[in-house]
Amino acid sequence: MITENLIQSFQAICGIENVEYSNAARLAYSYDATANFQALPDLVLAPRNRDEVAAIVKMCAEHHIPIVPRGSGTNLSAGTSPSSGGVVLLFKNMNQILELDQENLTVTVQPGVITKTLIDYVEGLDLFYPPDPSSLKISTIGGNISENSGGLRGLKYGVTKDYVLGLEAVLPNGDIIRTGGKLAKDVAGYDLTSLLVGSEGTLAVITEATLKLIPKPPFKETILAMFQTLEEAAEAVSAILAARIIPTTLEFMDQGTVQVIEDYKQIGLPTHCEAVLLIEQDGPLESVEKDMDKMYQICSEHGAIELRKAESDEEAEDLRSARREALSALAKLRPTTILEDATVPRSNIAPMVREIIRIAAKYNVTIRTFGHAGDGNLHPTCLTDLRDKEEMERVEQAFEEIFHASIELGGTITGEHGVGEMKAPYLEWKIGEAGIQVMKAIKQGIDPMNIMNPGKMFAKSTKERLVMSNV
Amino acid sequence: MITENLIQSFQAICGIENVEYSNAARLAYSYDATANFQALPDLVLAPRNRDEVAAIVKMCAEHHIPIVPRGSGTNLSAGTSPSSGGVVLLFKNMNQILELDQENLTVTVQPGVITKTLIDYVEGLDLFYPPDPSSLKISTIGGNISENSGGLRGLKYGVTKDYVLGLEAVLPNGDIIRTGGKLAKDVAGYDLTSLLVGSEGTLAVITEATLKLIPKPPFKETILAMFQTLEEAAEAVSAILAARIIPTTLEFMDQGTVQVIEDYKQIGLPTHCEAVLLIEQDGPLESVEKDMDKMYQICSEHGAIELRKAESDEEAEDLRSARREALSALAKLRPTTILEDATVPRSNIAPMVREIIRIAAKYNVTIRTFGHAGDGNLHPTCLTDLRDKEEMERVEQAFEEIFHASIELGGTITGEHGVGEMKAPYLEWKIGEAGIQVMKAIKQGIDPMNIMNPGKMFAKSTKERLVMSNV
Repeated sequence: MITENLIQSFQAICGIENVEYSNAARLAYSYDATANFQALPDLVLAPRNRDEVAAIVKMCAEHHIPIVPRGSGTNLSAGTSPSSGGVVLLFKNMNQILELDQENLTVTVQPGVITKTLIDYVEGLDLFYPPDPSSLKISTIGGNISENSGGLRGLKYGVTKDYVLGLEAVLPNGDIIRTGGKLAKDVAGYDLTSLLVGSEGTLAVITEATLKLIPKPPFKETILAMFQTLEEAAEAVSAILAARIIPTTLEFMDQGTVQVIEDYKQIGLPTHCEAVLLIEQDGPLESVEKDMDKMYQICSEHGAIELRKAESDEEAEDLRSARREALSALAKLRPTTILEDATVPRSNIAPMVREIIRIAAKYNVTIRTFGHAGDGNLHPTCLTDLRDKEEMERVEQAFEEIFHASIELGGTITGEHGVGEMKAPYLEWKIGEAGIQVMKAIKQGIDPMNIMNPGKMFAKSTKERLVMSNV
Repeated sequence: MITENLIQSFQAICGIENVEYSNAARLAYSYDATANFQALPDLVLAPRNRDEVAAIVKMCAEHHIPIVPRGSGTNLSAGTSPSSGGVVLLFKNMNQILELDQENLTVTVQPGVITKTLIDYVEGLDLFYPPDPSSLKISTIGGNISENSGGLRGLKYGVTKDYVLGLEAVLPNGDIIRTGGKLAKDVAGYDLTSLLVGSEGTLAVITEATLKLIPKPPFKETILAMFQTLEEAAEAVSAILAARIIPTTLEFMDQGTVQVIEDYKQIGLPTHCEAVLLIEQDGPLESVEKDMDKMYQICSEHGAIELRKAESDEEAEDLRSARREALSALAKLRPTTILEDATVPRSNIAPMVREIIRIAAKYNVTIRTFGHAGDGNLHPTCLTDLRDKEEMERVEQAFEEIFHASIELGGTITGEHGVGEMKAPYLEWKIGEAGIQVMKAIKQGIDPMNIMNPGKMFAKSTKERLVMSNV
């Protein structure tokens, strides 16, 4: 499909050193962080600037070659698996922070900038870029934008889309668009910025982004609250929000997760209670102290059996990083880890966690749950083994039932990981047939040849909705 | 075009009393708040629920009848002028607040709810819905969503789109979609919620919205700062933001505007200085006081010749309402008022205001400027007389040059009023030909018969870009 001639053309565009097609290179980019999805690309290209991206896209359009834009491949929905072969686009040569505008509080970056690099850079200037996916040490801003990544601070500060003010992108025909700008308000036409954010590389290749920054909150405090029962923890969450407090972070870990983290990190986490909440608040000192006192009290009143306040930045960082490394810790237990992100209105966290426990037992699979209690974004994580076909079948059935439960509870099939290839068959459960038709109309209009990340979001066939009475 | 038969069909759908076609009714809905745009609709319909909306849309689709969804018609871009005739859809029978969810901090409303009704309702429960367009006493939430309305609190709290969590809408084929939900995080498919927000009725009819609420800030303070020169005021704005303070409101009024408001309201506003800033901060008492002290000091250091702190809620309300009624006050001066919303990065406010003054002098037209300094959203307002053709030509040339200047300064042709019919010929200046093509692909895909608010956003022809060297 990709001829020697074409390879030479790509080499002429972005330099011989930025065109890879060895078996090793193709293998390296044949999968992302999602278990059980793998396909070989034909070529791996690393353009150096927007014009090279545009030239590559034009060439691909001319020859009907699929394009898979890829950040660091940390996504968990098989969003960057090259399922139709073609070209994987890397942004390692487009990883510069281009401009920090102190007057307008914006930063303009290339897509390949590592999330943590950006966060550290702006914090050094007393500014704040809130979206903090757990993969932030590895993930790129381009990937975050394509997936509309969330994170631990989403409850108070929102997600990636809330910080993207403008984009430059290459359309599937090679044209370049610029959306938005350094503007707090802009209603000139459809909101193409928001359309591209979270479109998982299916509509355009993002080549530059202007992001909104906010002042860095001066103080932050952290507490850990342990509860005998799930319900008590969930009630504490509701009570905190009912008290009109929006904490920065309100993270939930179930017993199984805490146990595994403690085994892995040994930082003295309690392993004897059914649920643990990690609570953080930031802002001006007085408000933080007031809120934390109130939340401390609320947790006590709702049956917290132990409350631990981080007495130093170091201790707080230990607690936070414990949560952040939940996935790594869990991944040590079995050969294969499947991390999901079923999300419900936060009032339904307790019923959802109970459902997950019930479903795991029903299918006899191991599922641990942690996640963002404040925004209802849970991460049921299955520890399994890909090589065991029979078990994998049960795992799939269990997740299908979990997605079903989250929809029934007013939720969604994915809160922050994206649809990708993995959840495409379930998308209609959330957005309905009419929603799928609208998405198809948009996709068809913008990418009529379907060269942009084909096979993602749009499923060949939709899974039948489960019919159950027990949810 | 609309036969007696069809009228009976519409009557059968939504009741005889909700179908109007007298000359008086048609005339009443032949224009909105935008000067110089008028066209008669054929019918005015007021459906009572979503299913009636869907039946009407299906009937219109079958007979290729244009549909113009209309809130209260307060928009300033000729977004609801029935330029192709057809049906005007009113939401006076769909004006209920359906549910307030205290646990998830959401409110679900029908499109016809008046903005202020909603704001007052939630504030009574100690909650807060921040978007506050100046028309909030009359405008509807449906209209706010269709236009993505801004307001005075946009700098700190964002605009309408930041508060829309989910929508129910009727597509041009009569299908119903539901987007989003009571979810802080949801990445299931393209962001259709954001696509519909600000789409000005060109893609679907919104029939229900779930909105995000936040806790009501407990305290608020207001000051008025007067500056001898525009530059000093603009420098004070920059210095405030550089000090990492994001005030709730940072409003700007030029001398001409203040003079007119004072003549109209007589609340003792200063009329001897070139620029006035209205500054407000809300939040916990300690932070508000700290921020206000700092801003007071910054204004002094940047040459404020007078600083007035509101000593009571009443006085603060006077200052705020003065700003809010700028338009009404200005409208008294001449028969016709044309209010624009050229928007620039906030670092370019002073150059932009200077440009507006220069352009007004060049074309010998009267323009007063006020607006949202904190987010660069200015409202140059022309006082003129529609009946004077020669003057109107100069007015049009002046605005053309103002749009040009705002684009050259990194801005946009519309910050919060929308494109409508009025600014459609200028849209390409902001989003480029490729942007227009993407919008057309979306419109064509979703509304292939172009029955949804035709003639809006998409221009028959684009204005030639001005070529100038003086900006």
